[in-house]
Amino acid sequence: MKLPEALDLINPAVKTQKAYHLERREVPVKLNQNENPFDWPQSIKEEIGKFCVDRPWNRYPPFIPDELRAQLGEYIGLPAECIIAGNGSNEMLLVLLLALAKKDEPVILCQPTFTVYHLLAEGVGAGSETVFLDSALQFDLDAMLAASAQRPRAPFIICSPNNPTGTELDETQLRKILAAHKGFLILDQAYVEFGGFSAVPLVNEHPNLIVTRTFSKAFAGAGLRIGYMAGQAEVIAQINKIKLPYNINFFSEYVARTALTHRGELSAGIDLLIRERDTLAAFLAELPCTVFPSSANFILIRTDRKQEIFETLLADGILVRDVASYPKLENCLRISIGSPEENNLLKQSLRRLFGR
Amino acid sequence: MKLPEALDLINPAVKTQKAYHLERREVPVKLNQNENPFDWPQSIKEEIGKFCVDRPWNRYPPFIPDELRAQLGEYIGLPAECIIAGNGSNEMLLVLLLALAKKDEPVILCQPTFTVYHLLAEGVGAGSETVFLDSALQFDLDAMLAASAQRPRAPFIICSPNNPTGTELDETQLRKILAAHKGFLILDQAYVEFGGFSAVPLVNEHPNLIVTRTFSKAFAGAGLRIGYMAGQAEVIAQINKIKLPYNINFFSEYVARTALTHRGELSAGIDLLIRERDTLAAFLAELPCTVFPSSANFILIRTDRKQEIFETLLADGILVRDVASYPKLENCLRISIGSPEENNLLKQSLRRLFGR
Repeated sequence: MKLPEALDLINPAVKTQKAYHLERREVPVKLNQNENPFDWPQSIKEEIGKFCVDRPWNRYPPFIPDELRAQLGEYIGLPAECIIAGNGSNEMLLVLLLALAKKDEPVILCQPTFTVYHLLAEGVGAGSETVFLDSALQFDLDAMLAASAQRPRAPFIICSPNNPTGTELDETQLRKILAAHKGFLILDQAYVEFGGFSAVPLVNEHPNLIVTRTFSKAFAGAGLRIGYMAGQAEVIAQINKIKLPYNINFFSEYVARTALTHRGELSAGIDLLIRERDTLAAFLAELPCTVFPSSANFILIRTDRKQEIFETLLADGILVRDVASYPKLENCLRISIGSPEENNLLKQSLRRLFGR
Repeated sequence: MKLPEALDLINPAVKTQKAYHLERREVPVKLNQNENPFDWPQSIKEEIGKFCVDRPWNRYPPFIPDELRAQLGEYIGLPAECIIAGNGSNEMLLVLLLALAKKDEPVILCQPTFTVYHLLAEGVGAGSETVFLDSALQFDLDAMLAASAQRPRAPFIICSPNNPTGTELDETQLRKILAAHKGFLILDQAYVEFGGFSAVPLVNEHPNLIVTRTFSKAFAGAGLRIGYMAGQAEVIAQINKIKLPYNINFFSEYVARTALTHRGELSAGIDLLIRERDTLAAFLAELPCTVFPSSANFILIRTDRKQEIFETLLADGILVRDVASYPKLENCLRISIGSPEENNLLKQSLRRLFGR
């Protein structure tokens, strides 16, 4: 067989997709990926390092990570049977779409949002239908209800607080959508520890609600790739069948359990980051730019001088995320909240640029 | 919404599937999962433990694990661009079926084989079509070519050496299938270090050939969940688009690289396991059972006294795998090759049972 014939066999939904890509730049101040600026305490890392050395690597992880599910359940207030853990919420979203999406029946997405949803919806052959945020980049409830009415049984993915806008869907809005929508509602709450309300308790009332969460943000574990989903036990039992067996390795399983055990220490930085975010938002509001209110660990701004700001910051060793190519985000930058020192460097750089 | 309505939204291919399950039994001698009996050397584990402690956990892994791809490529003799790494070959197989399978166009599988292929083929909505091994549990080339002729563009998954039979597809057979088949051929060579030939060099001639490999078996890393695939660069570039970003965590990425650096030490046990397998096969051949020739780190036997053997071994603290429920494997047990001590315990137990 010749190469073009082989390429011809690859599903069009894959071939037409642009490769998701992030240019790697080594900078002292990295504010482009919504990472938590605070690493784990050395003592916890050492405890886990010791576990790694003691644990036999030639043996499979537990077939069902019962302890982890129980601890996650206890953390969010649901029984173990309501939880699936995986390699980042990304894997959980893929599993959900495998279980719920139908070919050529688009998944409903609110745009702009996290790029991976679209990638996954295309990847499973469903495609996606867009509901735009309103001009203030808030969730547009009427438009969302209209999209639901048009595709009542479609999976509906909502990210709240939303990446990359920081927008929050409040409980009243969520309840209205849940009252109307006849398909599954997948609510990605990766950033919920930084603001907004946790929708997990609503799972008890709504069997079509699945909430995904992650250790990447508040738990400062972006390098660990651990996420989980929560839903009613009977629904989770079905979805679990399509999850790959032994999906997480022994390291992830143990790390997640340790994180939950030490959650007091690990979450110590959250309040500080929230204060830093609000201080930074106030600072940015004094500059010639629009600052969008954020319930997450980042701030979205719009400014005519986007390119200049991006490049000035980069020249000062500070990398933020240019999100101008996202739908409705022309001239926008997303700035992750760093440590107080990092945020000060950012402010200094911007003060110099704007002569303040 | 009521629960039955929510369950009704889950894809039938998931609901009709039996949950993949493995009962957990704690035994001193575990010969049921084709694990490598030899753990990694303490010094290598300590080196990795130290890396874990030093590495910031709050930072994402590299977007593209270039070094790992380069090292894997060097190991199997292909450029970095020909490789994708993931969480076990399971993830690689899922990504491949997402890219290659079409809804309601069955994937061709040789049965009996590794259960996960069927799970995945159902999961992506393609379903599967079966070509049975022959009565000696060898690959049936004529039947395979007939299945290919009937579904010329279907993805065809072959496991060689095949789990759970140990059967090998030789190079002549593989070349004949590649000459005939007009779809992708996914060759899972998880056990290839224990026998058979590596099909990786054939990738250069055949753009429709993808080989998957793993660190779980010869590399003694079942707990690590690291696998990879190899194919032509242009094909891999397309498939890479549907792989989840940041799919492997920093631990897996570093561990795999370290394994390759230390591969001399880690593969020291392979020859011993091959000798142990052949000795055990000769021993078993003296008992009242059929022993199937194996190119992997396990042996399949068929015996009228299957249940008695299984229970006797279990009573002696030795767990083997009852595979009698697989297609064509009535009365069959699969015995993983353990350490010499473990294999001796197995032999002693069987000697007592059969009065030898």
